[in-house]
Amino acid sequence: MTRAELIRQIKKKRSFLCVGLDTDITKIPPFLLKYKDPVLEFNKLIIAATADLCVAYKPNVAFYESRGASGWECLIKTWELLPVDCLNIADAKRGDIGNTSSMYARAFFDPSSSGMGFDAVTVAPYMGKDSVVPFFEFQGKWVIILALTSNTGSADFQNITSDTGFQLFEQVIQKANAWGNIENTMYVVGATRGEAFAIIRKHAPDHFLLVPGVGAQGGSLVDVCRFGMTPDCGLLVNATRSIIYASNETDFADKARVEAQLLQKEMEAELVKAGVIV
Amino acid sequence: MTRAELIRQIKKKRSFLCVGLDTDITKIPPFLLKYKDPVLEFNKLIIAATADLCVAYKPNVAFYESRGASGWECLIKTWELLPVDCLNIADAKRGDIGNTSSMYARAFFDPSSSGMGFDAVTVAPYMGKDSVVPFFEFQGKWVIILALTSNTGSADFQNITSDTGFQLFEQVIQKANAWGNIENTMYVVGATRGEAFAIIRKHAPDHFLLVPGVGAQGGSLVDVCRFGMTPDCGLLVNATRSIIYASNETDFADKARVEAQLLQKEMEAELVKAGVIV
Repeated sequence: MTRAELIRQIKKKRSFLCVGLDTDITKIPPFLLKYKDPVLEFNKLIIAATADLCVAYKPNVAFYESRGASGWECLIKTWELLPVDCLNIADAKRGDIGNTSSMYARAFFDPSSSGMGFDAVTVAPYMGKDSVVPFFEFQGKWVIILALTSNTGSADFQNITSDTGFQLFEQVIQKANAWGNIENTMYVVGATRGEAFAIIRKHAPDHFLLVPGVGAQGGSLVDVCRFGMTPDCGLLVNATRSIIYASNETDFADKARVEAQLLQKEMEAELVKAGVIV
Repeated sequence: MTRAELIRQIKKKRSFLCVGLDTDITKIPPFLLKYKDPVLEFNKLIIAATADLCVAYKPNVAFYESRGASGWECLIKTWELLPVDCLNIADAKRGDIGNTSSMYARAFFDPSSSGMGFDAVTVAPYMGKDSVVPFFEFQGKWVIILALTSNTGSADFQNITSDTGFQLFEQVIQKANAWGNIENTMYVVGATRGEAFAIIRKHAPDHFLLVPGVGAQGGSLVDVCRFGMTPDCGLLVNATRSIIYASNETDFADKARVEAQLLQKEMEAELVKAGVIV
């Protein structure tokens, strides 16, 4: 999905919601356990209940990988279910030396190799340029680079100030800006650090940001938008647990829709406030 | 495998060789393509040809993942083949927020969940403490944290000097030393940066180091040992391409053995020189 198409979907759906599919087989409603692949059935119903309210889905690869080869089958089948009018993000946090990152890129971008062709993958920047650029070799795909994450441990290294006066996450953005462009690069910036969006926007005024941490992790949507929204919106705000685990009963998909709708309405108000839509 | 057992194997086999299983289906001898799973057949013969010469195997997860669910099946079956007298390392470079890292830990450490129970997994530290500690929750396992990697891009961030005067890779070691201990933590340090081992040993005098970059990537075994070896050896030096792709013919396993033997002999000489063995 191109940047222009993503912006078009945001304006059309009046939403910049990304729904995280961190589907844990031990947390889904018990009545689903009768299905051959309960996680897939869960995902199918969550997607059906939320597809008109969000512009992106983000399966968290770890939750599938933890179930071995059958988990990968489920991830592939989940990818097949994802609607074409939503950006499909593999949240994988991969990154390795060049020839290995090329293999990870194939895993998530090349259906002829792996069975999956996500639009975007999250990438960890610790190993530097040659660990990231192989992901850019796939045309029309997005590389979403970790900058400032939503967890408490993010302060351990991401906030280290170098002798140039910039924090590590700023240097990641400064360097990565030269590896890709605003048509193929996003940054991960946690919602739990609302004030940091002002710093981020100094370095990446136009990039889309993927923002986890609203909801269960405690981030404020209003703060994120105040400091992070651009004339093109420039934000994909992810919510996972508050939506997908809204109920543990047979009504889980309806309840997920209610939660997604609440967020969509808040997002619509922010988009109007910022003049992205009228 | 405990640290004491690893040291015992190093002394017994007179080797600290780790064989990388970055098995690329497009690079293996064509005659293997007649098998149902050519990569598994290749791995089986490489393992049989080298098991007495090395103390560790390190499948590179990307190479399996790139082939989707069938690649994961192959990774699981490869893990089943790995000998018990060798440390089995999943080279996965994972790391995410706590609940997600727990899932990655299950993927590689918990056979009841994923079908695999590696002894060790490589972890990327960018997201800090809570992204790493879930891997320590599995008793008897090793967490191998990226410190200073072997690729050119490593200089982009790992060598950034902070206002405390330490480079990022030094701060990773300083902090991670407090998360685990020498019985359950190793660091990745690329052989391409021989002189850096002196700095590493100031921060981690006793930790085992996993050292990629000898062979195809150009690192010097002699330099690594001069600056990095401890009285317990303290090194696992990985070689991949020089061993597993030593020949593209039916003799590939024999040629792999010859290459592994050359490295084992060099390693034996270094172990004797350092007084680790007589």
